[in-house]
Amino acid sequence: MFGQNCNVIAEDEFFMSVALEEATKAASLKEVPVGAVVVCDKKLIARGKNEREEMQTPTAHAEMLALQAAASFQKSWRLEECTLYVTLEPCIMCVGAILQARIRRLVFGCLDPKAGAVRSLYRLCEDTRLNHQLDVAHGILESDCAGILAEFFSCLRETKRAVKERRGGRARLKALDSKSSVP
Amino acid sequence: MFGQNCNVIAEDEFFMSVALEEATKAASLKEVPVGAVVVCDKKLIARGKNEREEMQTPTAHAEMLALQAAASFQKSWRLEECTLYVTLEPCIMCVGAILQARIRRLVFGCLDPKAGAVRSLYRLCEDTRLNHQLDVAHGILESDCAGILAEFFSCLRETKRAVKERRGGRARLKALDSKSSVP
Repeated sequence: MFGQNCNVIAEDEFFMSVALEEATKAASLKEVPVGAVVVCDKKLIARGKNEREEMQTPTAHAEMLALQAAASFQKSWRLEECTLYVTLEPCIMCVGAILQARIRRLVFGCLDPKAGAVRSLYRLCEDTRLNHQLDVAHGILESDCAGILAEFFSCLRETKRAVKERRGGRARLKALDSKSSVP
Repeated sequence: MFGQNCNVIAEDEFFMSVALEEATKAASLKEVPVGAVVVCDKKLIARGKNEREEMQTPTAHAEMLALQAAASFQKSWRLEECTLYVTLEPCIMCVGAILQARIRRLVFGCLDPKAGAVRSLYRLCEDTRLNHQLDVAHGILESDCAGILAEFFSCLRETKRAVKERRGGRARLKALDSKSSVP
């Protein structure tokens, strides 16, 4: 029931590719590129992308926005017949929201060893003390989902290094200038 | 650092009483009565009450709405200088959001043995593997916070029993009626 690729179904790659489109849109807005979609009866009913910086809201993760959009579409907070696809392993907040929404199945792309709460740090979808558990599959389009994140953080590091170098250059010039002006 | 009443400060009871006002508003809307407020520099900057049924959104817990309102007020998703007061121990989703928002301090009223993720089922505010930890105090106006929930669920059970009895009564009348019409 719970494990990588043991319960993958035919349309998983298709819907994950739509979630990846959302992640790409997030990247183009300089947000950490994570995307999510909600599917019910094999129909896509909601999309979401990480918009934390854009919205300046701590809860604006891709999964949260997709779940809220799905609930709005279904006119119900109970999403018992739905599957959530997300490119990155959900964090504690998002797994909590998935459990609150009674999502039936979760499919995610790549693991998040630092904050993931489905496999990496916790296994919250399997806790039988809670009033809901759900099926989980992961590893769908894993290298694409991980790749878009790796590229984003590589660019971010590169930009930060360039800014630091420019600042260092200006500081050196200023120091030389101040030395040259000493009488 | 972490424990009941070991780090209570003077204004905790006042701000918890405001959170209780929010819980009372929720009860009047037939929502599970939980209320929350966000405080920064001893000033109240946001309020929230449970609105899951009203909004039909799985994420519309009191803490989530208070955090979103606080971020909107501060124009930043980082609420590093803020304290969150909530009448009931937060669930997994809400603790996740508290961590995402980098809340400095959490104060809650009563424990939630079935779903609480700060003391009862998990101790997520203390996990040093995550990129944020925070101070926690609980037991503030505990009996009031628990009392409003107990009263709500007692009324709910009473209403359900009355509905069941009325249905049973109608079914018995129907059965009698159908017997009396047998030739």
